[in-house]
Amino acid sequence: MAQNRENGHGSGRIPVGILGATGAVGQRFISLLADHPWFEVTAVAASERSAGKRYEEAVNWVIPGEIPPGVTDLIVTDTDDIDALGDVRMLFSALPSSAARELEPALAARGYIVCTNASALRMDPDVPLLIPEINADHVGLIDAQRERRGWPGLIVASPNCAVTAVIFPLRALHDAFGLTQTHVVTMQAISGAGYPGVSSFDIFDNVIPYIGGEESKFEGEPHKMLGTLVDGQIRLADFVASAQVNRVPVIDGHLAALSVGLKREASVAEVEEVLAAFQPPAIARELPSAPRTPMILRTEPDRPQLRRDRDAEKGMAVSVGRVQPCPVLGIKLVAMVHNTLRGAAGGAILNAELLAAAGYIQDYSVQPTAVSQA
Amino acid sequence: MAQNRENGHGSGRIPVGILGATGAVGQRFISLLADHPWFEVTAVAASERSAGKRYEEAVNWVIPGEIPPGVTDLIVTDTDDIDALGDVRMLFSALPSSAARELEPALAARGYIVCTNASALRMDPDVPLLIPEINADHVGLIDAQRERRGWPGLIVASPNCAVTAVIFPLRALHDAFGLTQTHVVTMQAISGAGYPGVSSFDIFDNVIPYIGGEESKFEGEPHKMLGTLVDGQIRLADFVASAQVNRVPVIDGHLAALSVGLKREASVAEVEEVLAAFQPPAIARELPSAPRTPMILRTEPDRPQLRRDRDAEKGMAVSVGRVQPCPVLGIKLVAMVHNTLRGAAGGAILNAELLAAAGYIQDYSVQPTAVSQA
Amino acid sequence: MAQNRENGHGSGRIPVGILGATGAVGQRFISLLADHPWFEVTAVAASERSAGKRYEEAVNWVIPGEIPPGVTDLIVTDTDDIDALGDVRMLFSALPSSAARELEPALAARGYIVCTNASALRMDPDVPLLIPEINADHVGLIDAQRERRGWPGLIVASPNCAVTAVIFPLRALHDAFGLTQTHVVTMQAISGAGYPGVSSFDIFDNVIPYIGGEESKFEGEPHKMLGTLVDGQIRLADFVASAQVNRVPVIDGHLAALSVGLKREASVAEVEEVLAAFQPPAIARELPSAPRTPMILRTEPDRPQLRRDRDAEKGMAVSVGRVQPCPVLGIKLVAMVHNTLRGAAGGAILNAELLAAAGYIQDYSVQPTAVSQA
Amino acid sequence: MAQNRENGHGSGRIPVGILGATGAVGQRFISLLADHPWFEVTAVAASERSAGKRYEEAVNWVIPGEIPPGVTDLIVTDTDDIDALGDVRMLFSALPSSAARELEPALAARGYIVCTNASALRMDPDVPLLIPEINADHVGLIDAQRERRGWPGLIVASPNCAVTAVIFPLRALHDAFGLTQTHVVTMQAISGAGYPGVSSFDIFDNVIPYIGGEESKFEGEPHKMLGTLVDGQIRLADFVASAQVNRVPVIDGHLAALSVGLKREASVAEVEEVLAAFQPPAIARELPSAPRTPMILRTEPDRPQLRRDRDAEKGMAVSVGRVQPCPVLGIKLVAMVHNTLRGAAGGAILNAELLAAAGYIQDYSVQPTAVSQA
Repeated sequence: MAQNRENGHGSGRIPVGILGATGAVGQRFISLLADHPWFEVTAVAASERSAGKRYEEAVNWVIPGEIPPGVTDLIVTDTDDIDALGDVRMLFSALPSSAARELEPALAARGYIVCTNASALRMDPDVPLLIPEINADHVGLIDAQRERRGWPGLIVASPNCAVTAVIFPLRALHDAFGLTQTHVVTMQAISGAGYPGVSSFDIFDNVIPYIGGEESKFEGEPHKMLGTLVDGQIRLADFVASAQVNRVPVIDGHLAALSVGLKREASVAEVEEVLAAFQPPAIARELPSAPRTPMILRTEPDRPQLRRDRDAEKGMAVSVGRVQPCPVLGIKLVAMVHNTLRGAAGGAILNAELLAAAGYIQDYSVQPTAVSQA
Repeated sequence: MAQNRENGHGSGRIPVGILGATGAVGQRFISLLADHPWFEVTAVAASERSAGKRYEEAVNWVIPGEIPPGVTDLIVTDTDDIDALGDVRMLFSALPSSAARELEPALAARGYIVCTNASALRMDPDVPLLIPEINADHVGLIDAQRERRGWPGLIVASPNCAVTAVIFPLRALHDAFGLTQTHVVTMQAISGAGYPGVSSFDIFDNVIPYIGGEESKFEGEPHKMLGTLVDGQIRLADFVASAQVNRVPVIDGHLAALSVGLKREASVAEVEEVLAAFQPPAIARELPSAPRTPMILRTEPDRPQLRRDRDAEKGMAVSVGRVQPCPVLGIKLVAMVHNTLRGAAGGAILNAELLAAAGYIQDYSVQPTAVSQA
Repeated sequence: MAQNRENGHGSGRIPVGILGATGAVGQRFISLLADHPWFEVTAVAASERSAGKRYEEAVNWVIPGEIPPGVTDLIVTDTDDIDALGDVRMLFSALPSSAARELEPALAARGYIVCTNASALRMDPDVPLLIPEINADHVGLIDAQRERRGWPGLIVASPNCAVTAVIFPLRALHDAFGLTQTHVVTMQAISGAGYPGVSSFDIFDNVIPYIGGEESKFEGEPHKMLGTLVDGQIRLADFVASAQVNRVPVIDGHLAALSVGLKREASVAEVEEVLAAFQPPAIARELPSAPRTPMILRTEPDRPQLRRDRDAEKGMAVSVGRVQPCPVLGIKLVAMVHNTLRGAAGGAILNAELLAAAGYIQDYSVQPTAVSQA
Repeated sequence: MAQNRENGHGSGRIPVGILGATGAVGQRFISLLADHPWFEVTAVAASERSAGKRYEEAVNWVIPGEIPPGVTDLIVTDTDDIDALGDVRMLFSALPSSAARELEPALAARGYIVCTNASALRMDPDVPLLIPEINADHVGLIDAQRERRGWPGLIVASPNCAVTAVIFPLRALHDAFGLTQTHVVTMQAISGAGYPGVSSFDIFDNVIPYIGGEESKFEGEPHKMLGTLVDGQIRLADFVASAQVNRVPVIDGHLAALSVGLKREASVAEVEEVLAAFQPPAIARELPSAPRTPMILRTEPDRPQLRRDRDAEKGMAVSVGRVQPCPVLGIKLVAMVHNTLRGAAGGAILNAELLAAAGYIQDYSVQPTAVSQA
């Protein structure tokens, strides 16, 4: 029955739904999926207050561009009303963490493939914390997840947006030299707080050295992502981590000052070589939303910069630079990411593409090699 | 002959001059000295281009408030023309470092007391790098300076503005527990670059992870300031230091994320107690510009913040907070300073007050105890 | 019984309360009244949610400086619980307009003198819309108000914060030349929206050409304020008015581009002369919070500017400048005000001082001439 | 010899040069022309200081994206050295006005087609002040220009960037109702001042009500652009104009509050209808850089906004909205433009495309209808 459902062509696209569709990240999902070759947004769910309205009426559209034509007239359903989601196969979740904790497992239990941006389940041992270029093999954890939970569906999670900035260089350095310590100080954009998010009266002409619950994520998520999948379990990577986070008056982009201790001492030149040579696994390179260069090494003395580098590769590349010796830990550098593209909606879409390419979406087959670079 | 020169009263105030008087820091000097009880600005020197003009005509006044009435009509002299400075006793230098290296020693050789904000001579072994609350005893280095150089005058230097943010907690922690390592990541205001300084097109909606020459200052200045004066020499404090600096879109204030390794392990509570109990030496407490509380410990989870805390104690207090365990180094915290007040002009004025109180200005005696708090 | 209640000395100060005390304008009231010679804050009222808490616990203090010591421990009462206000004589209202419409008349009926910043009653014919320097004689409307309403108390209102920027030059020009038309385009700070107010994600790197309900205020408030009190009624000034308002990414200060048509043609020089010569009535000049120069004429080509001029005279002076011929209407100029000081809390306090000086607060007498400039 | 020079295909593209190629607008030219179907950048000229360097070395690239590969290795020539320009046919000028006044006529005299963004010659009677959608027929002035000046080349000028925001609605309203008066107050982005342009210390948290020489442009340029070409001369449109300009802390985009007096009274609905129905002449619609909708009418109460609307149609559309009655003049509205795209480089490129489509570039023929939308 699936033979006439070839991906990437009209009605053959995989129908997907957005949870938390009216929020800022929900809007990013809808914007990025507007002309997606594999996925088509056919369901939008939000809070009870929005349910029943046309999407265009329910949303206060705050991101660049206009609402894609195919979505304006979709009727928003209540996120709690699972039955209303219809026949979508995959769900992108931009739910608040508290709602996600209850709802996402219920959705997986109903057979949905859930690609979540919420933090609720990230550290659950059987939920892959996934970035295709970093740990595509962690999809192998899904078998254990389904077996243990008895789900016909599944859940994969994206990491914290600021963790995304550092996990790329950490992956490269861990593989090449072995990490012993990581010390991160972030400068994070206001869009990371969602909408309405941060009061302008709080953040104008200011730096706020605090984001609730954010620092601890650097002490767990990287260890899971850089861990190894052994016998259906992630063996966590072993290094000590510390983080201090700051909100800065910038619209988009998270920048991290990163110092690392390495098992094997490395010069600046060696580190730069390793960063420049970073290559994701083959399956991650041919996904529609994959950047050609997922980690861009800048060698100018004053780059990367948030405004000038956040949109590199349509916001899907992490940029690194300013590699220097760190007298205290060994090596220091700067890493940055577009927090709502690669760091949120774009990252979750890339995860979904990986699942599709890996055959997790029954009745649909996708053809990565036939798809041109996004 | 000095009997009619009582300080703090009309013509009895000590006549002082400003070098680099038309720049942003020069303007801060003039603004802060407007009603100073001990000092009176009677000479203003700037580049050749401004020389000969009335100050009001020569300056593009960019700081808050108006030009003080006593200064508007002073005729600007050329900084290179030492003879034009007249009978001032003390000079506040806001010169660029390159000019300072030549000019400041020449001025000391002519008998002037130079309190400089320039970086040129900070690390010269016989130049006190001075903050009264931190190392007032380093004025003892002046004897060695005069002896070696044969100067009737003298030079004392203020540290880098961002170093000023961290040296207060470092002093307290070094005394209480002993420092082994310091790791600093700064977020620094645009006013630190002077005027016109940073192009708005560079820094709007941006973070720039680079300020030329700034990072190395954290690897030298604190060691000198926390060093001990022994036999006319500073024995440098011994700890490893690393710094990454960033320019952020904020008008005033430098904030530093600081992690430290301590010789003796300390809990967050112990560290907070030490920070809260910090007391400068007695002579530093009674200077006219001295803040009542030079280091303010904030215990709210999201303080200190640049806009909300930079003006504490008229911009002369350093604020610290967010003391936490650092899994990598031991303790981490946040420290901040108003960079053009305490971190520049205000700091140099406080140094001058210390010199006056310590009797370094001949023919003038000052009465600290009679002076009310600024 | 009042003989031992001399104003301005300790317990002799007039006890006042703040309605909406935890909001941004409420905080400004409390900050400005900290050391007021005539008034002492003894009651703070806010929403039911805050009631019963100590002020320090109830408030999220977002303005510069610390909470004044005398207020931190006051117990917040519910604004709806009039009985809880105790024996205060005067109330400063920072209530939302909807709440003010019900509550303020009820408070006047109970005998309180209400100085309100809310817009609800501004255009009521028997409520003085008051700025001491502009229309101090409108206090005469209070007799009519009390007679008609049967109130032992009274209500006076402050105008809209942006209207405050233009009413000073309009007063001077109307008196000198007669107004026929006014055309205003404003650029207004985020603090005008209260707290949390404008989302940073909305206003960063943006101009929003809309503030709900704001434009119509320019088509009514100036006409009332410049009107004449005849037989217990305000005869409105007669000129045509138009306004367009914009929110700009600035913390404090509203700037207005103002074009006016005049009954009698006037040159730029004549207009500047009239603006520079502006003098408020004698009673307005000796109030404790009155600026020495309530309208400052700047003659530099690029002034007034929001950041550089908003704090003039402790934020109580309106600044004007850039007077030019307007080919369309006659004369154009720029006017600006600190919106939360002169334009909100400071303006209402000045109104209260006028009422006190004019003898409206029974059992207390104040001595304006003995009070030094604030 | 030109028969093998078909436009739009490889070497057949028209070779063009950029004057002032290293400045901010010069960079925009280079960025926009990277993949242009008709033009190919083969020459880059800048000040003497840059001459002789590779473009990549000479430029401080400050706009989004990377330097296009075809330009990085071009050798920068001195703008004063006309001979060095080689065989380019068309020149885009981003010169400062003072340099443009001398140089651009000399270049036209040498046979170059000059599309200038400089203000120097805009008001010369025989220089078309051109926007294809507004007054494409003014290219007819070129004959008079060449005859009078004896130039084998020619010059067309683009209007001021902020004038570009208002000329679109003015064109529509003038045609439909007749203009009698225009009153404009602008809020202009920092990028309008070039690079380094405005000091961040001047514009952060500020509005500056002054841009040198800008206001007078609204009193001349619109009249010329809306004028009629009769007998080789522009008969200026006849209406009274006034403008006040302001610099606001925004990266890109100029917004104008516009009030107009109309010969024939019009309702808001009529005005909106006219704005929505605006159609450029046919020749302007098929140019490669032409937006599908050159003037977008927004009907939300709070649009257009600078950050949210400046990039509409790749920054080539003007957005208008907030149409309201103006009690003083008749109708008021808001108009905005991306100042460095449509308002500068993009506008000049569109002019060049018009010239190419109209056959002004000898030996090259272009095929507008075959070109897909940019």
